[in-house]
Amino acid sequence: MKIIVDLLGSDKGAETIFKGVIETSKLLKDLYFVVIGPKEIIEKVNISDDLKNRLEIIDTKEYILNTEEPTFAVRRKKNASIVLGMKCLDKGEADGLISFGSTGAALVSGLFIAKRMENVERPALTITLPTNKDKMILLDIGANTDCTTDILKQFAIMGNIYAKETLNKENPKIALLNIGSENGKGTKVLKETYSVLENEDMNFVGNIESRDIFNGDVDVVVCDGFHGNVVLKTIEGSVKFILDNIKKTLMSSILGKIGGLLIKSPMKKLKKTLDYKEYGACPMLGLKKVVFKGHGSSDEKAVVSGIVSMVDYIKKDINLKIEEKIERGEK
Amino acid sequence: MKIIVDLLGSDKGAETIFKGVIETSKLLKDLYFVVIGPKEIIEKVNISDDLKNRLEIIDTKEYILNTEEPTFAVRRKKNASIVLGMKCLDKGEADGLISFGSTGAALVSGLFIAKRMENVERPALTITLPTNKDKMILLDIGANTDCTTDILKQFAIMGNIYAKETLNKENPKIALLNIGSENGKGTKVLKETYSVLENEDMNFVGNIESRDIFNGDVDVVVCDGFHGNVVLKTIEGSVKFILDNIKKTLMSSILGKIGGLLIKSPMKKLKKTLDYKEYGACPMLGLKKVVFKGHGSSDEKAVVSGIVSMVDYIKKDINLKIEEKIERGEK
Repeated sequence: MKIIVDLLGSDKGAETIFKGVIETSKLLKDLYFVVIGPKEIIEKVNISDDLKNRLEIIDTKEYILNTEEPTFAVRRKKNASIVLGMKCLDKGEADGLISFGSTGAALVSGLFIAKRMENVERPALTITLPTNKDKMILLDIGANTDCTTDILKQFAIMGNIYAKETLNKENPKIALLNIGSENGKGTKVLKETYSVLENEDMNFVGNIESRDIFNGDVDVVVCDGFHGNVVLKTIEGSVKFILDNIKKTLMSSILGKIGGLLIKSPMKKLKKTLDYKEYGACPMLGLKKVVFKGHGSSDEKAVVSGIVSMVDYIKKDINLKIEEKIERGEK
Repeated sequence: MKIIVDLLGSDKGAETIFKGVIETSKLLKDLYFVVIGPKEIIEKVNISDDLKNRLEIIDTKEYILNTEEPTFAVRRKKNASIVLGMKCLDKGEADGLISFGSTGAALVSGLFIAKRMENVERPALTITLPTNKDKMILLDIGANTDCTTDILKQFAIMGNIYAKETLNKENPKIALLNIGSENGKGTKVLKETYSVLENEDMNFVGNIESRDIFNGDVDVVVCDGFHGNVVLKTIEGSVKFILDNIKKTLMSSILGKIGGLLIKSPMKKLKKTLDYKEYGACPMLGLKKVVFKGHGSSDEKAVVSGIVSMVDYIKKDINLKIEEKIERGEK
């Protein structure tokens, strides 16, 4: 198996991502890599002969910033790492691509170059989140802001297969994000989607409110990209607000300071659990090729875990399973 | 001044709400009360002669449950406490009404009985949230799921006045909830609303992502009721998830247990800060009459703080200010 790793555009720089590649190569001895980034940075790092034999470098310094309008940037920056990577992927030169740079650029170049699967209306960005029980998949988290019932139905179908394969659930519980748990709640599109999902061949358990997603009672939460993005960023903001406030509260009294010292190590562990950035990378479902997106602030360890998830995804042939299911559904 | 207090439908029962009324009567010596609830419960509680002279009772046992479809229930349950209260308010027998029961029932009975202000398209549910700096107002948090640009514009106008008067800001910063901070992000309606708000007579500071609302850099966040509700319930879920996990983490080690004991009291204080239910009640903006909604789990203290906020709102004549502004805007 060969995978493409886009080294550019992450918060921690190309070297960190490349070091993640090196660590992964020690774990997965039969994996080949195409890394895209500045040759001078890559060649400065010492690597084993073993990895040298499994490594190709595509040399570029250009990449797309988070602040750039992705559609425009993907068209203009022909030598951007994600564009070169996606072309390489499209030509069949590798089995998957992982990027830690701009999400918009990965999505747009995925759509323009690797393209959607036949019959998939829109691809979905996914994320795996911790809950009080097992992990849970949320989709879409930002690829599509205005979704029709058909699009949401496809998200549910894709999420169902992805959860089956990666969360090891035989019959994943699929729920629709809404502002009330009863049928008949929410927007027109959501009411319609509820009835459509009830008749789909999946374990649809109804609406879920965002306050309940951490209970771990469902495996997949389906929503449009606006709502998913709002949920994700609200979690992020809440976690930061709470942990900052705990620190402030503890520092304001002597007992708090002593207590704070005693709980420092367990709290650090907890912070890692709560930080979904630590959960490696997630796929963009519905593209013809396997494209994974890791968080921009990923460290070496997160890069390793992201690549490992992608390799698992490729091995399980999840894209093919989605393609087959969507095609059958559309007949 | 006379206010109506709906004693029924809250989690803690009519007696708790009534005890809150008693406490408030000690603070606000010139306030008159109409309480609506079961006479037998009210009369069981010992009250001072002073309060007796300022108290009217409307006797009813009927109320609308959270689980009932509010439009249907308000039409059918003629003797529900919120319906009787809203009728009393509509007749001009009091200056404001506060309820701790079903939000939907308060909203629907408000719309049907007290009615919208002239030229207000939709009323908005508000909430005041803590941030790292001052408090912040979020609206709408669930009254309207599908909002047009015009509706969102009115929410911004109403929120602006409400923030000016209650957060003591001369020129409150108004932001639009979106999934990116740049102009041009989000749904069609949001893009349109952005341009409209730029030309309004207010301190519009652009889009805000939900991860940033806790920074305290803006005073009012405007959004449709679906998005606001998702934000609010995600905060609620996140707070619970994090605090539960902290407890679990600390209980899993001896140092953690000791540390946990030491930080028990500051953590309890923090929990109260984070719990927006503690922030008393918030108005439904855009109704002809003053209607406040407190959280269903309000205790005596929260009831007091809710009534005090409402009295402040009435004294400042905020409804009149909104009415005048909206009318001028529509001309």
